[in-house]
Amino acid sequence: MNWDSYPSQILENAVREFSKLPGVGKKTALRLVLFLLKQEKNDVLSFAESLRSLSEDIVYCKSCHNISDSELCDICASPKRDHSTVCVVENIKDVMAIENTQQYFGVYHVLGGIISPMDGIGPDDLTVKPLQSRVKLGLAKELIFALPTTMEGDTTNFYLYRKFKDSDVKITTLARGVAIGDELEYADELTLGRSLINRLPFETTL
Amino acid sequence: MNWDSYPSQILENAVREFSKLPGVGKKTALRLVLFLLKQEKNDVLSFAESLRSLSEDIVYCKSCHNISDSELCDICASPKRDHSTVCVVENIKDVMAIENTQQYFGVYHVLGGIISPMDGIGPDDLTVKPLQSRVKLGLAKELIFALPTTMEGDTTNFYLYRKFKDSDVKITTLARGVAIGDELEYADELTLGRSLINRLPFETTL
Repeated sequence: MNWDSYPSQILENAVREFSKLPGVGKKTALRLVLFLLKQEKNDVLSFAESLRSLSEDIVYCKSCHNISDSELCDICASPKRDHSTVCVVENIKDVMAIENTQQYFGVYHVLGGIISPMDGIGPDDLTVKPLQSRVKLGLAKELIFALPTTMEGDTTNFYLYRKFKDSDVKITTLARGVAIGDELEYADELTLGRSLINRLPFETTL
Repeated sequence: MNWDSYPSQILENAVREFSKLPGVGKKTALRLVLFLLKQEKNDVLSFAESLRSLSEDIVYCKSCHNISDSELCDICASPKRDHSTVCVVENIKDVMAIENTQQYFGVYHVLGGIISPMDGIGPDDLTVKPLQSRVKLGLAKELIFALPTTMEGDTTNFYLYRKFKDSDVKITTLARGVAIGDELEYADELTLGRSLINRLPFETTL
């Protein structure tokens, strides 16, 4: 069955807008729109307003390029954070994941992607130059590479390493090892092997 | 992992609005919002505008109660439609499904639901009274009940039948039978049985 006989242009517009979203087909879009039609008028208006605000009011932090409500994001503006440690991540989801650990007190640098020739993403599409400027300013003492362990992540790691190895900034990367709570027998060999090579003095884990 | 460390209030608002939609959790909502952030500003604005219009501009046809852009929907306003035949349906999706057949040239009456005591929906929550007024006006000669074949649909059918059996309007219902293209062996007994009882002269199917 196709759904082309929309009784209303307004309805059709809303369905078309929803079906542009990833993973949302025309039938799901119609279901969502009919759901909204049953909601209070003000609820739908505040949905619309949140989208308008998303497109018009959001800015990117001029220091770390994270999404922000103001020129400098809350993390970069905080005097409580360690501004000499910069964690380099692919995107904002990674910032949120790391913030959720409540174990990191440094600042971030959001690349906005990773180098992926297959998708046509090169170093110039990322915020590499701003990162170089940040390092040149001399505030950063350590860069923590927290990129995905994929071929693209490794490529990006290596590219960044070559850019920064001659500057006097320390370069580290996330520890890889058996996840906490995981059985050894289910860990893959690469991870298990790495966690053996990078074994830690027991006292440090207490 | 929870996702409570949104770097921006605007982002968090948009995620909250999306996650109010049925079947959309916080993670999906964040994915959709991050997708929108990558789109052109004007595309997001037109999405917002379509929602505003949905909440403020849409009206319901005063005759058939279908969703409409104007006081009288296109179908009710059309002189080409047969206004003496009124197809009674549960909701606007049913109107669209029937319109897609291109086999129906009458008009509709959208009940806005079916009687369902479990969900607290009684006859007064539906557009039964407006349907009675329409029948009283005398324009309708036939009511086609096109409600779902569920217990609630049957209840509603029966309720409507009792309301209208003494008026001089003809009451019909959709033919039920083996679907076109279906194998007999996979048809359920009820449907197959009904299609035997209501068998048709072969010539009428030519």
